[in-house]
Amino acid sequence: MGTTTTTNRQVRLAARPVGLPKAADWTIGDEPLRELAEGEVRVRVTAISLDPAMRGWMNEGRSYIPPVGLGEVMRAGGVGVVEASRHPAWPVGESVSGITGVQTHWTVAPDRDRGAGLARIDLRLGTPAQWLNVLGMPGMTAYFGLMDVGQPRPGETLVVSGAAGAVGQTVGQVAKIKGLRVVGIAGGAAKCDWVVKELGFDACIDYKGGSVKDGLKEHCPKGVDVYFDNVGGEILDTVLTRINRKARIVVCGAISQYNNTAPVQGPKNYLSLLVNRARMEGMVVFDYADRYPQAVAELAGYLKDGRLKSREDVVAGGVDAFPATLNKLFSGENFGKLVLSLEG
Amino acid sequence: MGTTTTTNRQVRLAARPVGLPKAADWTIGDEPLRELAEGEVRVRVTAISLDPAMRGWMNEGRSYIPPVGLGEVMRAGGVGVVEASRHPAWPVGESVSGITGVQTHWTVAPDRDRGAGLARIDLRLGTPAQWLNVLGMPGMTAYFGLMDVGQPRPGETLVVSGAAGAVGQTVGQVAKIKGLRVVGIAGGAAKCDWVVKELGFDACIDYKGGSVKDGLKEHCPKGVDVYFDNVGGEILDTVLTRINRKARIVVCGAISQYNNTAPVQGPKNYLSLLVNRARMEGMVVFDYADRYPQAVAELAGYLKDGRLKSREDVVAGGVDAFPATLNKLFSGENFGKLVLSLEG
Repeated sequence: MGTTTTTNRQVRLAARPVGLPKAADWTIGDEPLRELAEGEVRVRVTAISLDPAMRGWMNEGRSYIPPVGLGEVMRAGGVGVVEASRHPAWPVGESVSGITGVQTHWTVAPDRDRGAGLARIDLRLGTPAQWLNVLGMPGMTAYFGLMDVGQPRPGETLVVSGAAGAVGQTVGQVAKIKGLRVVGIAGGAAKCDWVVKELGFDACIDYKGGSVKDGLKEHCPKGVDVYFDNVGGEILDTVLTRINRKARIVVCGAISQYNNTAPVQGPKNYLSLLVNRARMEGMVVFDYADRYPQAVAELAGYLKDGRLKSREDVVAGGVDAFPATLNKLFSGENFGKLVLSLEG
Repeated sequence: MGTTTTTNRQVRLAARPVGLPKAADWTIGDEPLRELAEGEVRVRVTAISLDPAMRGWMNEGRSYIPPVGLGEVMRAGGVGVVEASRHPAWPVGESVSGITGVQTHWTVAPDRDRGAGLARIDLRLGTPAQWLNVLGMPGMTAYFGLMDVGQPRPGETLVVSGAAGAVGQTVGQVAKIKGLRVVGIAGGAAKCDWVVKELGFDACIDYKGGSVKDGLKEHCPKGVDVYFDNVGGEILDTVLTRINRKARIVVCGAISQYNNTAPVQGPKNYLSLLVNRARMEGMVVFDYADRYPQAVAELAGYLKDGRLKSREDVVAGGVDAFPATLNKLFSGENFGKLVLSLEG
């Protein structure tokens, strides 16, 4: 089996963060790789996905999935290559994705642990980084959040926050393909330029450079029919003042609130839902797992014909760089889908 | 035509209230009744409905209907009897309802002003006060909010706030008829006793007498599937912590917030919508006007067979008593649907 290493380098959750995670909330170390048991597969992880949802997984308490336990390997989606296998369906050399965790080597028993999500990835459809982005969890979140919860109709106006982020970039492009007017909200001129000039959004509002309210008035002259919310906080409140009758608000995330030590800021304009007979609805991508293949096929088709683009912000440095890289999400420094490479 | 009076006593909005409306926000006076023009009908108003929504109509700004203008007769739903008519379809003596305003006499041209909502009421189906309650706007709000937005399914658990109020009493009883477990939230032991013993709710939580959170834990052991919210504020936030996956929250009102001088308190637990893939949706009863007859028929049937009860808090005193009576709504003093009688 060649010259595989004999250790697995891992990032474990050492403490529950208060506010922004800090170095002391993590422990990084090596453990020896053990022999595979019958039915197990070992994946050499080549890249992992860094997602806002990770912040929630670090907290105690009831959520859509259990929190990461103290002392456990940090949960993460990743891609890699099978490097050892005692399962006939998963031969050495296959490119795969799954909930690998933040570690260099992932050992999984696919028949016993279906929640681990071991799946083949077809590198003809997209790069490994794209399989963590538009063809992976963020892309699935964008697709099902938009189509199932947002229920877009041609001619309507969609607004998406975090427009240059992993989910936002795909939401906006798919909405354009579906015939909507699309207005992004993002932080900084570079991101706004990119979503308009490269991705073809109709407009993008720079929340760092001006008033979101004025931007919505200017760029959504017919109001907002679908708002895909990745950020929460003040921006959600502002969009609520501009929604149309029967508007749909997709509650996908609230990155502005995840590191709050104060209580979450509730949308004080929520009675706009009443006045406008509008809806605010949450979604969790895992509910759509049965339909991922259909969405991957559609999105891969758009990638191939050039109607859909993606941008990944791939950071080198291996698992040791995980803590610092994660925090780029919350500062808004990253540009595109944030990926940590474990190669090279 | 007999000894009809020659003046119309009216309550007009004199100033936009700050917080709870006060006496100086109103002017009360008489104006002479004029001759009817062709196509007009004059109704002697016998009772008017006092509704939490009135507080919103007094504010400036965009809403689902225009605000009442300064100096205008206060908007109100009412019932009465046609006492003069120059319209062949509306003979003298008919019992009717409509947006009468807070005045003793309502002159309306039904063909020109459809928004005024002049409609016959059948006193065999319910008393005039019931036509302002279960067979009127609150009943329609309860019915369509529950059935269309709440989408109740037998065996589910419904929670309704303002349970002894006009909308709440009908929401809970119809939900029981539809096979749900029904838990009310109301202020005070008398109201709670009534909704359980008289209306047949499974339980009622007295928010003035104990913890709503504890009450929900005790009385909703399987969580909350539908929450019909009439109150907003802290109670909404507490219910959000107990909702089930795919729960529906009907945003019908937020009486706890209507007299706030501070901004509305947004639901800081709204991310429970995300975790639970749940929905919060607003509704405005006027959207269902085409279907009122169907709902009236169903509710009148339940009234007749004794499965649906109603309670009205009828206050005497005529239009002069309007300002003080309205404020009973916001103090929670009234018990049942609040109606102001203009007779006797």
